[in-house]
Amino acid sequence: MVTSAKHHLPNYGVFDEYRYFVPGNVVPVVRTAARNSEPVDVAVAICEDLWQDGGPVTVARQAAASLLVVPNASPYERGKSDARLALCQRRAAEAGAPLAYVNMVGGQDELVFDGDSIIVAADGSLLARGPQFEQALVVADLDLAAAGAAAPPGDTRADARDGTTMTIRRLDLPGGPPAAPQAPPVDGPVWPRLSELGEVYAALVTGVRDYVTKNGFRSVIIALSGGIDSALTATIAADAIGPDRVHVVLMPSDYSSGHSVSDAEDLVKRQGLHARTVPIAPIVAAFDAALRLEGLAAENLQARVRGMTLMSLSNAEGHLVLTTGNKSELATGYSTLYGDSAGGYAPIKDVPKTLVWDLARWRNEQAAAADQDEPIPENSIIKPPSAELRPGQLDTDSLPDYQVLDALLDDYVEKDMGAAELVAAGHDPEQVERVITLVDRAEYKRRQYPPGPKISAKNFGRDRRLPITNRWREPRTRLPS
Amino acid sequence: MVTSAKHHLPNYGVFDEYRYFVPGNVVPVVRTAARNSEPVDVAVAICEDLWQDGGPVTVARQAAASLLVVPNASPYERGKSDARLALCQRRAAEAGAPLAYVNMVGGQDELVFDGDSIIVAADGSLLARGPQFEQALVVADLDLAAAGAAAPPGDTRADARDGTTMTIRRLDLPGGPPAAPQAPPVDGPVWPRLSELGEVYAALVTGVRDYVTKNGFRSVIIALSGGIDSALTATIAADAIGPDRVHVVLMPSDYSSGHSVSDAEDLVKRQGLHARTVPIAPIVAAFDAALRLEGLAAENLQARVRGMTLMSLSNAEGHLVLTTGNKSELATGYSTLYGDSAGGYAPIKDVPKTLVWDLARWRNEQAAAADQDEPIPENSIIKPPSAELRPGQLDTDSLPDYQVLDALLDDYVEKDMGAAELVAAGHDPEQVERVITLVDRAEYKRRQYPPGPKISAKNFGRDRRLPITNRWREPRTRLPS
Repeated sequence: MVTSAKHHLPNYGVFDEYRYFVPGNVVPVVRTAARNSEPVDVAVAICEDLWQDGGPVTVARQAAASLLVVPNASPYERGKSDARLALCQRRAAEAGAPLAYVNMVGGQDELVFDGDSIIVAADGSLLARGPQFEQALVVADLDLAAAGAAAPPGDTRADARDGTTMTIRRLDLPGGPPAAPQAPPVDGPVWPRLSELGEVYAALVTGVRDYVTKNGFRSVIIALSGGIDSALTATIAADAIGPDRVHVVLMPSDYSSGHSVSDAEDLVKRQGLHARTVPIAPIVAAFDAALRLEGLAAENLQARVRGMTLMSLSNAEGHLVLTTGNKSELATGYSTLYGDSAGGYAPIKDVPKTLVWDLARWRNEQAAAADQDEPIPENSIIKPPSAELRPGQLDTDSLPDYQVLDALLDDYVEKDMGAAELVAAGHDPEQVERVITLVDRAEYKRRQYPPGPKISAKNFGRDRRLPITNRWREPRTRLPS
Repeated sequence: MVTSAKHHLPNYGVFDEYRYFVPGNVVPVVRTAARNSEPVDVAVAICEDLWQDGGPVTVARQAAASLLVVPNASPYERGKSDARLALCQRRAAEAGAPLAYVNMVGGQDELVFDGDSIIVAADGSLLARGPQFEQALVVADLDLAAAGAAAPPGDTRADARDGTTMTIRRLDLPGGPPAAPQAPPVDGPVWPRLSELGEVYAALVTGVRDYVTKNGFRSVIIALSGGIDSALTATIAADAIGPDRVHVVLMPSDYSSGHSVSDAEDLVKRQGLHARTVPIAPIVAAFDAALRLEGLAAENLQARVRGMTLMSLSNAEGHLVLTTGNKSELATGYSTLYGDSAGGYAPIKDVPKTLVWDLARWRNEQAAAADQDEPIPENSIIKPPSAELRPGQLDTDSLPDYQVLDALLDDYVEKDMGAAELVAAGHDPEQVERVITLVDRAEYKRRQYPPGPKISAKNFGRDRRLPITNRWREPRTRLPS
């Protein structure tokens, strides 16, 4: 058995590897036989070893390896697959050998691994590429340089060029593939790439599918409001586990518009979901009789009665509750704790509102292109967003337009800009002040939010870790909601 | 200005310093004047630099420092203050100089800093010690060795004996204390130590007080059941911010025993809290009419109606909701998500049930010793624990005795023992299997639990970080509750 330990330990973003591991300083170089029975030397580097300068890649060249194999559990992020190919090409050149990059597929809590395995030649040309978000066996014959004069098994020292000295451990693994010099070489397949929106959507579907199935759930339940967030969430769920395993609940209140119910019913019909209606007015009235609530407390009460109804049905019937909040909402705290934020998994929590619309349109276009019914009612996409917690309420009553908001949130949350930088970048100073305050104050809500698939460079969860109690600004009264 | 960067970066337990900092390799040695106008050299090490071998402590000796000053933000853990004194004594000997250990006081989210500043002589004798969990100015005159021949300001290299080379940066800070050789030297005060239970209680009070006040809340609200968890939580809150800022709600259901209400009322009267009663039966009935719930779903519903009632009163009146769950409950998942787990801060989430009883008894004894009324009704301490979610329900119906359970949880959660080790340590094999399963399955609930003060070596939160989705055991159906 060949064991190998990662040399470069990532400790940023979602990674905490300094907590659990010590870095390895050995590069195994395994001598085995090629198809033509010539000896070849295969070196191994692991995941982060490819992303950092020096280390096993440098050592592979010093060891004159015929091939560098790189096993990975590298989580998906938007745009990462382009960076990945360029990186493989650069490292293959540094190693002076073809490079096989092998990545895991599937979801685990907030991480989604996207596959996208890659084989490049030493000159950087792409030889084979696996699919994204799907398991596949990628087979390719490679032209490998024959190993030099038989280096005896044993250890030699190498300069890793990152300030450390590593050990080259030469091992013999007799055998290799069956000698078949007469069979024609197999060209590696190159799977087509997903579009920019297609890969985000696939990541969300993979995250949901694997959270549900790996945790032993048979079905999910979702509150359907007629709005775009719950419509997209239900569509993702149906694509992930099939519409027959998706249960939705319509919970109209006195403030729900007529189109809320009809748009939700339209979606149910298009996708063939299990639907039921639970009117919340009598339950809200019972609370109100006991507590006499007004204003924000009364608004939140409706959201919480809905959350409780979902949880009760989950307890009674075994469904996983999917939460429908998006990243813009999570950032600004526009959600009710234990209300619309209640649930076990949050499929679109890392998706800003503008991207929610883009994905909904993209999904409908895919259906249209395949001559299928569009799964999401057009009205859910085009109507102005509202939480419908009071008469005539619109998101834009208290938030900037989502195009403006999302650009600002991206700069503040993902790019870590401070107030002065945000203003210098062209954001309106009043909006900057207001939005920063909203984001900072909502940390306590995010802390209790369920996990959901990461698609951005900085998600709320493992990436962005901030204290609730802080002195970034003057203390002020904060109300939970 | 003298700046200094920590050399040893902790990245375990609650610490993530490799994410944010790079280690410093400079030890500032500041030449200043003692009271007798002699020159003295003061070296600086920071927090973790004291806990690890080598580094600034070693360098302080090479620099022949007259005094080693160690500023700290070192979070409280049970028993740490004894370890701290022994450590200071050992490091002073290594540095060959008196050592002043200065620690922060106060709470921030789940961390509580306990003060306990210490001055020891080079021979390890204790010269001064500040109070625990209280700010204080600790003044002491020390016998410091005069600095050697004037070393000119500038950098020299030193072997840190931890595989690194550090720089000694000599700085001049003219002045020092007013020369007053005629005044008699001041002996350092040594504050009395808190008892083992006294320091835990003080940590909980500090955590609650600072979460409330630093986040701008004026009051808290707590569901009072008559049981020991909510009784202790309310008592901690009253001690932290005064009984006049503590609001409690009695929410009896059909399954509440007579003593539940009378014990809760007794506590309210003893402590002078603001109390009100909200009968939950009509609200539960309204849900029931809409959903027809039975079994677990019906039990959880009661807990959620209580949680929602608290959140509604919080929204309406601005109180922070304090959650009353203990560590044994959190470990085994014996709580209802969005029910009794609802709230902004969880004062006893790191306190196992057996310690809850110990603290309640200790608090009553303190009152008795001071000739005050005991704050906690004896009946809340001695009655068998029950969630009262169905007729005659007792915790022991489905959990082992808490003495047995807490010992097992301590070995599994805090000491990280595996199943075989637990059995070898003398725990009953069936209980081991059952409790491990409970703990592993409850991770999703813990993920959504509010923060609370850490008092153990391994709290649920920043210390113990585990995935929800895992393959430690075979997949099985899991119901959220």
